[in-house]
Amino acid sequence: MEKDWVQELTMILGEAKVQTSVADVHSYSFDGSFGEYVPEAVVHVSSTEDVCQVMKVANAYKVPVTPRGQGTCLSGGPLPVHGGIVLDTSQWPSSVEIFPDDLIARVSPGTLTSTIHEAAAQHGLMYPPDPSSAHVSTIGGNLAENSGGPRGLKYGVTKDYVLGLEVVTPEGEVMRTGGKTIKNVTGIDLTKLIVGSEGILGVITEATLKLVPAPPALQTMMAAFDSMRAAGEAISKTLVSEILPSKMEFIDKACARAVENYQPSGLPIDAEAILIIELDGHPAAIQEEAEKVERVMMELGAKMVIMPQSAAEAAEIWKARKLVSPAIAKIKPTKVSEDATVPRSKIPEMMEKLAAIRENYGIELVVFGHAGDGNLHPNILCDKRDKEEMQRVELAVAEIFQAAIDLGGTLSGEHGIGTMKSPFLEDEIGLTGVDMMKRIKQAWDPNGIMNPGKVFAEEGQRLVLTHD
Amino acid sequence: MEKDWVQELTMILGEAKVQTSVADVHSYSFDGSFGEYVPEAVVHVSSTEDVCQVMKVANAYKVPVTPRGQGTCLSGGPLPVHGGIVLDTSQWPSSVEIFPDDLIARVSPGTLTSTIHEAAAQHGLMYPPDPSSAHVSTIGGNLAENSGGPRGLKYGVTKDYVLGLEVVTPEGEVMRTGGKTIKNVTGIDLTKLIVGSEGILGVITEATLKLVPAPPALQTMMAAFDSMRAAGEAISKTLVSEILPSKMEFIDKACARAVENYQPSGLPIDAEAILIIELDGHPAAIQEEAEKVERVMMELGAKMVIMPQSAAEAAEIWKARKLVSPAIAKIKPTKVSEDATVPRSKIPEMMEKLAAIRENYGIELVVFGHAGDGNLHPNILCDKRDKEEMQRVELAVAEIFQAAIDLGGTLSGEHGIGTMKSPFLEDEIGLTGVDMMKRIKQAWDPNGIMNPGKVFAEEGQRLVLTHD
Repeated sequence: MEKDWVQELTMILGEAKVQTSVADVHSYSFDGSFGEYVPEAVVHVSSTEDVCQVMKVANAYKVPVTPRGQGTCLSGGPLPVHGGIVLDTSQWPSSVEIFPDDLIARVSPGTLTSTIHEAAAQHGLMYPPDPSSAHVSTIGGNLAENSGGPRGLKYGVTKDYVLGLEVVTPEGEVMRTGGKTIKNVTGIDLTKLIVGSEGILGVITEATLKLVPAPPALQTMMAAFDSMRAAGEAISKTLVSEILPSKMEFIDKACARAVENYQPSGLPIDAEAILIIELDGHPAAIQEEAEKVERVMMELGAKMVIMPQSAAEAAEIWKARKLVSPAIAKIKPTKVSEDATVPRSKIPEMMEKLAAIRENYGIELVVFGHAGDGNLHPNILCDKRDKEEMQRVELAVAEIFQAAIDLGGTLSGEHGIGTMKSPFLEDEIGLTGVDMMKRIKQAWDPNGIMNPGKVFAEEGQRLVLTHD
Repeated sequence: MEKDWVQELTMILGEAKVQTSVADVHSYSFDGSFGEYVPEAVVHVSSTEDVCQVMKVANAYKVPVTPRGQGTCLSGGPLPVHGGIVLDTSQWPSSVEIFPDDLIARVSPGTLTSTIHEAAAQHGLMYPPDPSSAHVSTIGGNLAENSGGPRGLKYGVTKDYVLGLEVVTPEGEVMRTGGKTIKNVTGIDLTKLIVGSEGILGVITEATLKLVPAPPALQTMMAAFDSMRAAGEAISKTLVSEILPSKMEFIDKACARAVENYQPSGLPIDAEAILIIELDGHPAAIQEEAEKVERVMMELGAKMVIMPQSAAEAAEIWKARKLVSPAIAKIKPTKVSEDATVPRSKIPEMMEKLAAIRENYGIELVVFGHAGDGNLHPNILCDKRDKEEMQRVELAVAEIFQAAIDLGGTLSGEHGIGTMKSPFLEDEIGLTGVDMMKRIKQAWDPNGIMNPGKVFAEEGQRLVLTHD
């Protein structure tokens, strides 16, 4: 016997949009993070009107709703941890309208982020946020999680490029926030409140994004160091030399070796640390800057600096960087991927703390990430069937979070709090901050149906990486 | 007989910090906008602890509190429209700590914005937001109002440079939001919610600001046009030529003549429209860009393009631009200064609508502003003692707002809603948006003591520019 709310949604939206079979709901029970949670129904939406209908029924029946794009989230955003409805936006027709005179784009939530990149490029424009998943993740997910990526250093993150939103509230009302202009101080800023709120405040059904002129030229560089500290100092030194690279990525020895084992890509495997840098701007400017960066790298003891002379050579280096994540996933069956972020100057210290954590807990900990903005990705390779090992991993993860906070950093730079990090939220934000966040959630979603179980820890919740 | 809450505050903070004499309270009854509202007390605060004490007492007695910096606000933010306490932060010791390795600054709310500019410059860094009032306004006020300025075009506004805040809640609790890193997705974004909330959600007691490397070179240009539309098209054409100027300002003929009458500054007085542009970046890049911009200006019929060859000559032009506001204030006793903002491509249309409004209502309407980001400053010169004229001005202002909204723009680009624009909020935001904003306000400030009478219109409120 079908539930009343399933019947009601089926009647409104049609059978094809409401799925409840075991096979169907299991396909929507996981994302790119940990854990599996099976929803009671998957509802495919392809218009704002659809979303309003779902939210109104769900609110009336007090059924949880968890919005989902392509499910690439690394923090559990699309996991229906309290069951109910997975609201799937991945079938929403892709739509990107570019308004070149206004330097803006209007997009639908189901659009792949890479589709926006391509559409902007056709007008000589750029949408800067570029999470690694850009070719498989939807902009709706990027907006909900405030995705980052390597260009954060110079260009900021997703939130910095959102001018306006259309949002369906937890009670099923349509709301427009912000607008089409860079400057807008009309009322309090709901746009930036909703971006990065991990789907707990509403469902994003349209966005107006800010674009910038595409930089006329790019120059990639790769430098190898025999010491982690020297690499960290080279990053700091570059950034105080009046140069703001568009990307400044870091790969440790273990990551480089994993890539070369997985798919030989020409990364040096005997260096402790590799920096991959991209400069963008006017050709004359980046040539000067590249020479300056090369001098900084050599002064700080780089054993090698490579400056590719063609776009194809540069693309090879960036391809190797993108292979890090899949390559390290081959080391052991389970990958716990973190994104603790520290002020840039604290990168060498954070690297030392991570090395100590690796030793103390006898875990396989590798590090790569967006070094220029302090956003590291410590990854622990383990086996989730090994309970003893996973307990050590749990302790190590907690210590990584504390290390980031102690250095003036944050639990999460770009992945989000979601399910796993919520027990640590109060350590960083404090009791009053968490209380004020919860007041907003309660005021907007009095029935608590909008993606419950995220961001805020439940009574007694702690980090658990093992599931029976 | 003193009120109980005055006695209690005097006991806690000392007599010097709590003023209630007629002369004292009258000094805090106005700002840079319209209207005079006399508070019951002025309380000078110089620490977070002071602010907590004031908020706790005020909340207990349900007394309104209106935070105030230097009172330069153009929308009524610091006006105590419901009486109660003006919380004066202008005596708070100025403090700017620059952390050059992290590209951040930590500042106290009473610091003048220009002090931050100077401190950053000493490290080869830049704090980009530069409202015209930067040399006399406090950063606390800039944060509360999300100040803009001419660099918005390329660099965005105040909000884009705030990484973290310390805030005292309406109930007197201290809260830290955000942090010191560019990337931070730990919890929902209270930082950007509070910046620009016009003092209705709490009192900002410290801020961590993002800095950028100072551009190595600047080039100013001035172009004069015989037609408003041609100037508007020149702006659009420049912005789709892969050039993003750091400033792109517009002055109409009436403004240029006012400046030349006030203090001769070399502005052409026979042109319908003047554009003043600044390019920043690498010297080679800006030289090429300047040539490109000059070609665009000439193609679109500029009657003159001046390219100053020294910093001193450039400074003269920018000084003339800064004189617009004081110069037009001399035309008539009263200046109603608006900041309606439209998508960039709509500037020519907005200019035509403004010309029609000027004709229809027989008012003295001049226009200048930040044309590159669509942020115009239509200013109406009038005499507030002339009731008949002021009624025409009220109608004209309402029509300016509607024109901006009709073109996909906003009521306020950088001044804030405050007291005057609140009756128009719902026209732009819609009922649901206003409701969701009010829910946050209610959840955070259940007694409604934090700067009441701002942003949201009161029952039956309409625009009134005359006061008896």
